[in-house]
Amino acid sequence: MTGFAPAEFEARVARAQTRMQRLGLAALLLTTEPELRYFTGYLTRFWESPTRPWFLIVPASGKPVAVIPSIGAALMAQTWIDDIRTWSAPDLIDDGVSLLADTLSELTAEGDEIGCPDGHETHLRMPLADLRRLQSAIGTRKIVGDHGILRGLRMVKSDAEVAKIRAACQISARAFARVPEIASAGTPLDQVFRRFQMLCLEEGADWVPYLAGGAEQGGYIDVISPASQTPLRSGDVLMLDTGLVRDGYFCDYDRNWSVGPASAPVRAAHSRLIEASDAAFEQARPGATASQLFHTMNTILTDGGVGTDAGRLGHGLGMSLTEWPSLIPDDHTELEAGMVLTLEPGIAVNDKILVHEENILITDGAPEFLSPRIGPEIPEL
Amino acid sequence: MTGFAPAEFEARVARAQTRMQRLGLAALLLTTEPELRYFTGYLTRFWESPTRPWFLIVPASGKPVAVIPSIGAALMAQTWIDDIRTWSAPDLIDDGVSLLADTLSELTAEGDEIGCPDGHETHLRMPLADLRRLQSAIGTRKIVGDHGILRGLRMVKSDAEVAKIRAACQISARAFARVPEIASAGTPLDQVFRRFQMLCLEEGADWVPYLAGGAEQGGYIDVISPASQTPLRSGDVLMLDTGLVRDGYFCDYDRNWSVGPASAPVRAAHSRLIEASDAAFEQARPGATASQLFHTMNTILTDGGVGTDAGRLGHGLGMSLTEWPSLIPDDHTELEAGMVLTLEPGIAVNDKILVHEENILITDGAPEFLSPRIGPEIPEL
Repeated sequence: MTGFAPAEFEARVARAQTRMQRLGLAALLLTTEPELRYFTGYLTRFWESPTRPWFLIVPASGKPVAVIPSIGAALMAQTWIDDIRTWSAPDLIDDGVSLLADTLSELTAEGDEIGCPDGHETHLRMPLADLRRLQSAIGTRKIVGDHGILRGLRMVKSDAEVAKIRAACQISARAFARVPEIASAGTPLDQVFRRFQMLCLEEGADWVPYLAGGAEQGGYIDVISPASQTPLRSGDVLMLDTGLVRDGYFCDYDRNWSVGPASAPVRAAHSRLIEASDAAFEQARPGATASQLFHTMNTILTDGGVGTDAGRLGHGLGMSLTEWPSLIPDDHTELEAGMVLTLEPGIAVNDKILVHEENILITDGAPEFLSPRIGPEIPEL
Repeated sequence: MTGFAPAEFEARVARAQTRMQRLGLAALLLTTEPELRYFTGYLTRFWESPTRPWFLIVPASGKPVAVIPSIGAALMAQTWIDDIRTWSAPDLIDDGVSLLADTLSELTAEGDEIGCPDGHETHLRMPLADLRRLQSAIGTRKIVGDHGILRGLRMVKSDAEVAKIRAACQISARAFARVPEIASAGTPLDQVFRRFQMLCLEEGADWVPYLAGGAEQGGYIDVISPASQTPLRSGDVLMLDTGLVRDGYFCDYDRNWSVGPASAPVRAAHSRLIEASDAAFEQARPGATASQLFHTMNTILTDGGVGTDAGRLGHGLGMSLTEWPSLIPDDHTELEAGMVLTLEPGIAVNDKILVHEENILITDGAPEFLSPRIGPEIPEL
């Protein structure tokens, strides 16, 4: 089936409301795609349009209330949400602000605190001028941070969520296995990118929001560039890193190939990357921290080697391509069963870099590879 | 060639600085993908990751200054920007805020006003808590709105920009022409969506950020839903609406097909839609307003018919799928040569809707269809 049963959303709301009560929040105010979808199941690519704001209120008790543009009403009515309030957007004078203020005023009392995600990896998806209007329209109610409630909830996935991420990982596994069909010496890199996205779709991706990579002699310059038109040539290391979506959930991992025989430094670097991600994998159990996984990988990578500028060596994933936590020295988040992580070690090779990435699931016991585990040898095209 | 020559960016910055001077703004502070790309040419799909904030400062004179995560430095160094300041992101304590405050303090003086887009169709892509930290770190400098500078600049495209939108429109024209290859009675709608995205890529799309549509008996319920798994059947109206990207610029238009022979109401509705968009096209010259185009279409659509819940009948497009202006009664923006618009009439047919969409260019004389003009007859699959 696609989506989730209503019980999934009821459980998410209940967990949020327990935390809200503890923190004294009378409501949550949410504005971004994953925040709305987390509590409603509302799935559409229409968020690509920056024009219209969308709002969801999670009250202290009861079901969430959607305050959305009328264009979204029919689709929202197909979710488990009953209370859907709409305005005809865009409205240049009052783009939902009065309707939102009225709804917040109905669901909360004067002096109440309304939590709005304001921390790391969040933003408010509405015009700043409208936030000021909203604040003055809700009397003595105060918009404050959400104290990390969304972060805490979304970071630990349910079994049903994990199943969707696993399905996404399997789709890209099949696409990665077919890369030799579409890439060889002489193929322009932008053509490889187009054909790889086609493979992802053919293998079952609903859409392919993310593809990055590179291909240069003995490595690449960075891991976020769009494709050049340069043909692949012997000695290149080709890397493809995809975040494809199946039923609203991402995978995010990469693979490297040598075009023709790999040089000794490239072979050694690839082997070192696998050694690093394997070591982090072995350690990735409840109680270990994101920071510890970073240091485990970093020690292996920098033993005679040099790191990259990526800023971290892995992260969470799920409804978004990248989520909390971050595998960095300062992130002491303890791993819990249900977290899905990427392990993403990178290493410098002369003036280039190589980056490897896997997706894993934290369980009560040994972790599980969601991306197919690979060996130290870099495959040859 | 991909991207633009530096002269394109110099001209954009000069136009911005002229307006900033008139409005007394000492700098612009920009945080979103199209805002940064507009002044730098920085093109990457990495924005799909919500983790890291990115900043660009356009000072009162001189070139923009990038304040970005180190992972983006190599790619930014390939643009025309020289002054690139980086931090290792994510940083849970100070995610670029101090570096940004220091840079703003260096480029502006105490008491200065710094413009940040805060109006319709904008948002600030950084955590709200970091905005508060930034404000207290820049002394008596004040973050204010940008008075619509970005809106005004981006709404009127250069010839080089129009060429890229035209190329995107031509790619989807070729993909739309091949829909009979992939869709017929019995094909599940989600399979049509996957195969259509593959056609877009095969015909030259760099990526396909947007595809929506529907297929139900005699019309569809809305225009923003993801695909169901229901097979097409005779009597369905299939609609595909795509925003594909070529070299950083979007097209955004749709096409309708009848699966098997169309009913009389469907044929009449499709013909009415074409009549409406053709009428708006004829009127779309400098001096006409967005509002007038709305009324021209709406009069035709509601002459014995009923509108839809879309909230508008067209909009701008370019670096984003949807941009200013909006074809609504209250938007009195005067059309100018260089604007690219969608004409997007919708009409109710019994309990369903039909929506048609074209992309046009405003010139000094007659407008130009960027999407291939079609006739009143709905094609049959």
